[in-house]
Amino acid sequence: MSFRSFDELRQAILGLPAGNDEAARAAAARQNTLTKPQGSLGRLEEVAIWLARWQGRAKPQLDRMKIVVFAGSHGVTAQGVSAFPAEVTAQMVANFAAGGAAINQLAKVAGAELEVIPLQVEQPTGDFTQEAAMSEAEFLSAVATGYDAVSSDLDLVSLGEMGIGNTTTAAALATALFGGGADKWVGRGTGVDDAGLKRKATAIEAGLTRHRDILNDPLRVAAALGGRELAAMLGAALAARKHGVPLLLDGFVTSAAVAPLFKLNADALAHAVAGHVSAEAGHRGLLEALKLQPLLNLGMRLGEGSGAAVAINVLHAAVACHNGMASFAEAGVSDNSA
Amino acid sequence: MSFRSFDELRQAILGLPAGNDEAARAAAARQNTLTKPQGSLGRLEEVAIWLARWQGRAKPQLDRMKIVVFAGSHGVTAQGVSAFPAEVTAQMVANFAAGGAAINQLAKVAGAELEVIPLQVEQPTGDFTQEAAMSEAEFLSAVATGYDAVSSDLDLVSLGEMGIGNTTTAAALATALFGGGADKWVGRGTGVDDAGLKRKATAIEAGLTRHRDILNDPLRVAAALGGRELAAMLGAALAARKHGVPLLLDGFVTSAAVAPLFKLNADALAHAVAGHVSAEAGHRGLLEALKLQPLLNLGMRLGEGSGAAVAINVLHAAVACHNGMASFAEAGVSDNSA
Repeated sequence: MSFRSFDELRQAILGLPAGNDEAARAAAARQNTLTKPQGSLGRLEEVAIWLARWQGRAKPQLDRMKIVVFAGSHGVTAQGVSAFPAEVTAQMVANFAAGGAAINQLAKVAGAELEVIPLQVEQPTGDFTQEAAMSEAEFLSAVATGYDAVSSDLDLVSLGEMGIGNTTTAAALATALFGGGADKWVGRGTGVDDAGLKRKATAIEAGLTRHRDILNDPLRVAAALGGRELAAMLGAALAARKHGVPLLLDGFVTSAAVAPLFKLNADALAHAVAGHVSAEAGHRGLLEALKLQPLLNLGMRLGEGSGAAVAINVLHAAVACHNGMASFAEAGVSDNSA
Repeated sequence: MSFRSFDELRQAILGLPAGNDEAARAAAARQNTLTKPQGSLGRLEEVAIWLARWQGRAKPQLDRMKIVVFAGSHGVTAQGVSAFPAEVTAQMVANFAAGGAAINQLAKVAGAELEVIPLQVEQPTGDFTQEAAMSEAEFLSAVATGYDAVSSDLDLVSLGEMGIGNTTTAAALATALFGGGADKWVGRGTGVDDAGLKRKATAIEAGLTRHRDILNDPLRVAAALGGRELAAMLGAALAARKHGVPLLLDGFVTSAAVAPLFKLNADALAHAVAGHVSAEAGHRGLLEALKLQPLLNLGMRLGEGSGAAVAINVLHAAVACHNGMASFAEAGVSDNSA
């Protein structure tokens, strides 16, 4: 899928398919027949019904799942915003390929395919304190790469990212889209000290000043202040919705990446669940802004899609109960609602 | 293992083996070499080190895991404390055997063996508003059954229970052990209405008045106000500690069951992790009293060991990262601490 302009992409975001209400209703009705007090499986019931709605089947399945990790390099690292050197992005892409990273192990445990898509990692985006991170064409190209990574035969897609400097990029997007000043959104990322935290906020305020003329346009914000891996996640989230594939989000950076969709269309993340809330400072507030309730809160702050990958196991538990439990009638158990 | 008296059991609880500090230190050191910012896997790192400490190996494993679900019947159901009839306990034991309950599906997802141990389900304990729930001999017999369910070759044991009426029993134990009045600890269990909630509190206050002479003795409290499945979980938790088996706790009832251990010896649950915090009203406060931080918060309130079973998947994720990730040196990734 290619989008020729911001306007064409915006139109695609404004016209989204609805979920399958009938499948969701059938799944909810089934939950209430199973041998347990109604509602007692809590969010396991909720996510089973969510999967049913977006897969369009009363008994959802998790046979074909993909974790897509997009990697990109950020010109803003020139401002000293990360505790790690910029070359770590390419080194970690090699580590993914060799199977040595956290997400490799977590994908295996979750039973999901892992695909890593580097986006011109050798060519950083522009430093947004000095220029636009990406031109319209560069941004749309990254969006298209993400869009094409999601096919309609998937039962679930889970997003992740790698990019030294990208918690600064993500905080810049959050500041531009939701306000409150950079201090509200910056966090320690891979582990910057107080001085590094201040450099992050300073860079973001400089970026917002430089790009002040386009701050009311979420897609132009994503191009000017974002990164290629964030643009690709936006495209992947959009493709998931168009193809009827439930979407699992990871941490602060994936949430910021899809935030422009929400700003353009408040319904655009209805097919998404937040896998976890990360320890990165701005994530909880960002999830609140996006009206998403995280499944897990394990103090994780690694990125790579790692928190979402752990959450896939919760989805397996939900689907196993939903599809495998006996009803009160089948089991001969007395129902209190009888 | 049989205990001949409250005193003999108390002595066993006072003399507990320590964890393996060397294995824990080696595991913590390994975590800090892996290709991620230090601490960025949050609680996954913490539980990997916890498993290492109690398994006594720097690289823990989760090959042999058992979920044990104890079932018992409660005389206090005569006070109208449950939304479900008492015969549901036996019906659910049959449902466990047939594979139709939530815990059957969740054990499969977690890769754990499921063992269900009914404790004279056809013979309810005494109604604690009228008499002691169990005699010393009955209590110790149930403790021994639980103790014998845990063998030293296990990598993990996870506890669960079934017993109509047992959130009242559990709240009675919590009130007796930690104070604050019954209203602080009662919740809706399987779904009682406001009148049922009041009957639970009234029954508990009556029980505490009747048994006021033994309230300063945690084991006598567990016998007078508890239940057979709770006594068995106490025994299983003790055996896990004696055998060096990490212990995963489920919801409000399992937490109350092991609370007498904590009251007698504040170190007695050091080998335990709380799998989740349930939606049952008193659980969060009880975990705080026991100084346990739950791994999950999914709004679950089913019992059966269901929340802990979901948490086992988090342990799998933790162990996979701990054992499978490459180090900075192995992967050729630049470390920020270099």
